[in-house]
Amino acid sequence: MKKIRIGLIGFGTVGSGLYRLLEQNAAIIERRTGIRFEISSICDLRAEDVKNRTKGVEVITDWQEIIADPKTDIVAELIGGIEPAKSIVLAALKAGKGVVTANKKLLAEEGGEIFAASGAGSGRLGIEASVGGGIPCIMALRHGLVGNRVKSIMGILNGTTNYILTSMQENNLPFADALKDAQDRGFAEADPTFDIEGFDAGHKITLLAMIAFNRQIQFKDVPIGGIAHIDSIDIVYARDMGYVIKLLGIAKETEDGSIDIRVHPTMIPGGHHLASVWNEYNSIMFDCNMTDPVILTGKGAGAMPTASAVLADIVQISLQGDAYQSPLITDGAAQLIEPGKRMSRYYIRMQTDDRPGLLSQIAGVLGKNNISISSVIQKEVHTENVPLVFMTHEAAEEGMLAAILEIKNFDFVHGEIMLIRVEDSLSAGEQK
Amino acid sequence: MKKIRIGLIGFGTVGSGLYRLLEQNAAIIERRTGIRFEISSICDLRAEDVKNRTKGVEVITDWQEIIADPKTDIVAELIGGIEPAKSIVLAALKAGKGVVTANKKLLAEEGGEIFAASGAGSGRLGIEASVGGGIPCIMALRHGLVGNRVKSIMGILNGTTNYILTSMQENNLPFADALKDAQDRGFAEADPTFDIEGFDAGHKITLLAMIAFNRQIQFKDVPIGGIAHIDSIDIVYARDMGYVIKLLGIAKETEDGSIDIRVHPTMIPGGHHLASVWNEYNSIMFDCNMTDPVILTGKGAGAMPTASAVLADIVQISLQGDAYQSPLITDGAAQLIEPGKRMSRYYIRMQTDDRPGLLSQIAGVLGKNNISISSVIQKEVHTENVPLVFMTHEAAEEGMLAAILEIKNFDFVHGEIMLIRVEDSLSAGEQK
Repeated sequence: MKKIRIGLIGFGTVGSGLYRLLEQNAAIIERRTGIRFEISSICDLRAEDVKNRTKGVEVITDWQEIIADPKTDIVAELIGGIEPAKSIVLAALKAGKGVVTANKKLLAEEGGEIFAASGAGSGRLGIEASVGGGIPCIMALRHGLVGNRVKSIMGILNGTTNYILTSMQENNLPFADALKDAQDRGFAEADPTFDIEGFDAGHKITLLAMIAFNRQIQFKDVPIGGIAHIDSIDIVYARDMGYVIKLLGIAKETEDGSIDIRVHPTMIPGGHHLASVWNEYNSIMFDCNMTDPVILTGKGAGAMPTASAVLADIVQISLQGDAYQSPLITDGAAQLIEPGKRMSRYYIRMQTDDRPGLLSQIAGVLGKNNISISSVIQKEVHTENVPLVFMTHEAAEEGMLAAILEIKNFDFVHGEIMLIRVEDSLSAGEQK
Repeated sequence: MKKIRIGLIGFGTVGSGLYRLLEQNAAIIERRTGIRFEISSICDLRAEDVKNRTKGVEVITDWQEIIADPKTDIVAELIGGIEPAKSIVLAALKAGKGVVTANKKLLAEEGGEIFAASGAGSGRLGIEASVGGGIPCIMALRHGLVGNRVKSIMGILNGTTNYILTSMQENNLPFADALKDAQDRGFAEADPTFDIEGFDAGHKITLLAMIAFNRQIQFKDVPIGGIAHIDSIDIVYARDMGYVIKLLGIAKETEDGSIDIRVHPTMIPGGHHLASVWNEYNSIMFDCNMTDPVILTGKGAGAMPTASAVLADIVQISLQGDAYQSPLITDGAAQLIEPGKRMSRYYIRMQTDDRPGLLSQIAGVLGKNNISISSVIQKEVHTENVPLVFMTHEAAEEGMLAAILEIKNFDFVHGEIMLIRVEDSLSAGEQK
């Protein structure tokens, strides 16, 4: 039986998950593929610890040995971060190895160089594990939907924030308590910045958009917003209006060919497919010109789901050999839409004094900036400051921001003004 | 640029869809694959009509010419049914061609022979379009989830019945009116038997289960039930209890290794992932031992979604060449679970006289057959016959059927007894 030797670099969550996956499912994988997959060496700085947790595997601390070893067929880079991950991936590709990585940061920030290197020589690159954990979304996009023009991508791409938003919604918790709960249950890191500020989702939507639109996108150019400022009251207002708030990565090709890409909390209708994806689950919707929306849902992180994706790439690289097609970006740099021109509906919430005539002044400012109001909620409350909520029709961002500045200057408007984008686009058999 | 010549057999909905897809998206596919795909010949008995609707393509009426033509790289069998489709696929495989088919009936009923033939020679077989239309579910299962043991598959596999059930639920229509509406809108055939009796879903779950469990399953051995007997009142009762009724194809590996496979209307909790898939959309949930549930959703039929899947296979066969791995079933015949041993919760609805003591007699019969009651609904109505509804805990089918026979014999029970299976298994971030 053909044997494939894997050199594993990084024995953390995903690396040890891959080891366990092969221990547990080796027989079933052999029957399906006719290949025996074997982790032949592991590189990790905690070598003693790794030796205690593994059997019959060479454990080393210098990754260059794995790449120099002619017996290594495939290198799995599972350490994350930019360096030394970047050097590892480039060196392994140059050495003509198969390379699999779960490193979304590396691919989103340095993808240009990595994809060019994988296209240049005999190295073969697999990136399934970099987005969506156990969800085979890169494969679906690159191969399943290869006959389609992708119109847009919308995704719940980060499990931590989806877990927090779910628990704010279900248990009426304020953000801080929901975050604490997520940390206690292992769904959020001790320092949760990377997740809750939207950077993780930003890496993933950048990578998905590059592949879908076949153009280079600089991660640093992607506007990113997180969820820490979302108030429980916004979730309640959203629900009252039939909406749910999700942190979405969104990328659309506009009519002039420019790309509108962003990450931000988004209100979507309760019947929208992504609205019923809860807790730590991720879900990605590709809206395509032949299939219409295709949605993939599952666990977007965790040792075993991510290891499943790593293994999927290892199998494809092994079965296809030289025929394996690495992801390539061949159409040059994407033109991103000017931020001010982005079109969206908006939810706006502010605190005002409780006296007559204020609504008309605020509505006047919105109208002057070409923003037409779809609905207004002003509930009777017995406090000094009254919450006032608007939903607008579609408007350009530049008009919206100008209006907000002007409204903030009214002496009867207090504190920050909450602005949340609204996406009404239909999806999979939405229930009206 | 490498060129791949496609011989298209059958210019119906999907065949003409493939032609249009290539007309419209050829440039984007070329940039992604480096290959020019061209339909070089079309076989269809309506040759004149096809000639009028195409340009620069040879149109013939004898499929053997396409297979005999050395210039044909890939044969697309898009006529459906058993013959001559079976002869076409076998002959094309024997001739060493790439073969793609959307023919679920052929694969579910004659899969053993077809898969064996594709494994035997140099022919390569692609079957993505046979299940789930534009949803890349075969690829996800075979390649994306290759490192997993599949625990179960649950799917909304037929758009016609999902459309009908959606419209029964949303518009409170009886089955007959919802069917008529579906026919008027083109979501149901003039003779809808194949869809509404569950045969179409049965073909698909048979095929998915064979691939997932790597064992032969005979379609004729799969118990299949349709939706024509579902009453609007059942949909209302289901909703009152927090459930939705969907026609599901289900396949599970039981603890002793036997396969529990079936198609029937099923009550699932409103928060279940499949519960929020409406109208003509399909959705397939693979519950796997590494990824946990992965769910794919999209349009399961129609010219362009299905053509997208056909094209996906054509591309993979063309890129991978001899490395392409056709689906194989290598573990022999599946042992199916004895029908009487199948475990399920049940919804039972009957009409009884309105007098005291009847409930206790019926409950007694259920208890005697080891069926424990989870809830009872008996609403006050002012008619002669009173609807009585039970939800049971998990019970074996043999006990359930014995109890039903006994209950039917009571002189105070009138008409048919409605029995609907209930699946409570959790899925993607179900909202409690």
